Amino acid sequence: MSEKRIWTAGMLVIGDEILSGRTQDKNVATLAKWLNVQGIRLAEVRIVPDILERIVEAVNEVRASVDYLFTTGGIGPTHDDITVDAVSAALGVDVIVHPRARAVLEAYYETRGGLNEARLRMARVPEGGELIENRMSGAPGIRHGNIFIMAGIPHIAAQMLDALTGQLEGGDPVISETIGCWTAESEVADTLGAIEKAHPDCQIGSYPFFREGKVGANFVIRSTERDALDACLAALCEALGTAGFETFAGGI
Amino acid sequence: MSEKRIWTAGMLVIGDEILSGRTQDKNVATLAKWLNVQGIRLAEVRIVPDILERIVEAVNEVRASVDYLFTTGGIGPTHDDITVDAVSAALGVDVIVHPRARAVLEAYYETRGGLNEARLRMARVPEGGELIENRMSGAPGIRHGNIFIMAGIPHIAAQMLDALTGQLEGGDPVISETIGCWTAESEVADTLGAIEKAHPDCQIGSYPFFREGKVGANFVIRSTERDALDACLAALCEALGTAGFETFAGGI
Repeated sequence: MSEKRIWTAGMLVIGDEILSGRTQDKNVATLAKWLNVQGIRLAEVRIVPDILERIVEAVNEVRASVDYLFTTGGIGPTHDDITVDAVSAALGVDVIVHPRARAVLEAYYETRGGLNEARLRMARVPEGGELIENRMSGAPGIRHGNIFIMAGIPHIAAQMLDALTGQLEGGDPVISETIGCWTAESEVADTLGAIEKAHPDCQIGSYPFFREGKVGANFVIRSTERDALDACLAALCEALGTAGFETFAGGI
Repeated sequence: MSEKRIWTAGMLVIGDEILSGRTQDKNVATLAKWLNVQGIRLAEVRIVPDILERIVEAVNEVRASVDYLFTTGGIGPTHDDITVDAVSAALGVDVIVHPRARAVLEAYYETRGGLNEARLRMARVPEGGELIENRMSGAPGIRHGNIFIMAGIPHIAAQMLDALTGQLEGGDPVISETIGCWTAESEVADTLGAIEKAHPDCQIGSYPFFREGKVGANFVIRSTERDALDACLAALCEALGTAGFETFAGGI
């Protein structure tokens, strides 16, 4: 009965530029790390094109299985920016112009050529949505219940997350320890598996690397429990040392 | 009736290291660009954790709507490498040790400590699977029908794709032209929308940037038709020039 509630998030990365390979996504890693600190686990990401039906479908499928849904991309002023339309359709609510978003954009564009129709698109929200502040370029993000609509441009998305820090209910933050080891992971696979089994509150990931002509691996232990993490780390270090492998704290 | 067949691919990125933010994925962009050249469109990507049921579900959902499915990650020797098990479960086939994969690994590890049980895991394939060559680290990728199971380490994944170049049936390659412009995209949103509408064989993407204290945007036109692409590019350049904006070929 003492099972802890695990809070989860899903993410939609929206945009042809990611699926065409033109742009390297950076928002997945940023959101993932931010969620770790909030005590929320990123459970699934989908990257979808700028096609309304595909976004609607993904919004509805992913939000059904997570506590929070984040989207990045598709909230600019051009014809391919259809995230607000898609989320509204998924929720079955109207698209409205948010009065405060309009006021924010009016102020922002006052010295930048004025608010035209395209710019006004960025004040549109699914009815019932609240704004997420964007200090950098005027156009706000949007929160609608457990859905968070954010910019695609990485530094703006990061700043919107910053505005949300501490606002979401979560569990214990996920903490991790990394140990590097000069060994092929295939030499120690059994050891890793056995130690993970003996420490059920921890997950161990194994990530090989090649450096200075030598094979090595980083072993990352993740947990929400400091004591469990420390015990697992100690057990792993001892096992690797006993087996004759050179280890180093922090990994590469 | 002259509608061209569009070939599509889906991708599963498998691994807790991506969802935890520890590792920045690079395989999506690599696969996307490679697919463009093969005349195949990347239609959807899902990033899923190292949980068997979640991978099985994603394999079956995504492969139902695309011509080809690619996976990256989870084919190493450790306990968290379960991609082969998951794909086999999704397909309803047994996991078997592939004789040639075993021979390849035996040869590779002959001077590297020999083939132990963990390393032998990397010779496992869904029954009926063929090997995709891996010249770099012995452990092969796997092709099973229209499913391609690849390594998570980017340079190995790229090299497996290289081995597949020209092997897959596709349509006309997607080609693109980029034009940079010193304007806020919100100044020219209507122009972009109108030009895309007038050139139905082309898609135009708009990607803002900030450089040297100025706002600009790259407009990327994509098409499978050289003539349509050139006509659309000419129309866009003319419209932007007529409106008084400075443009430059290739973008930033």
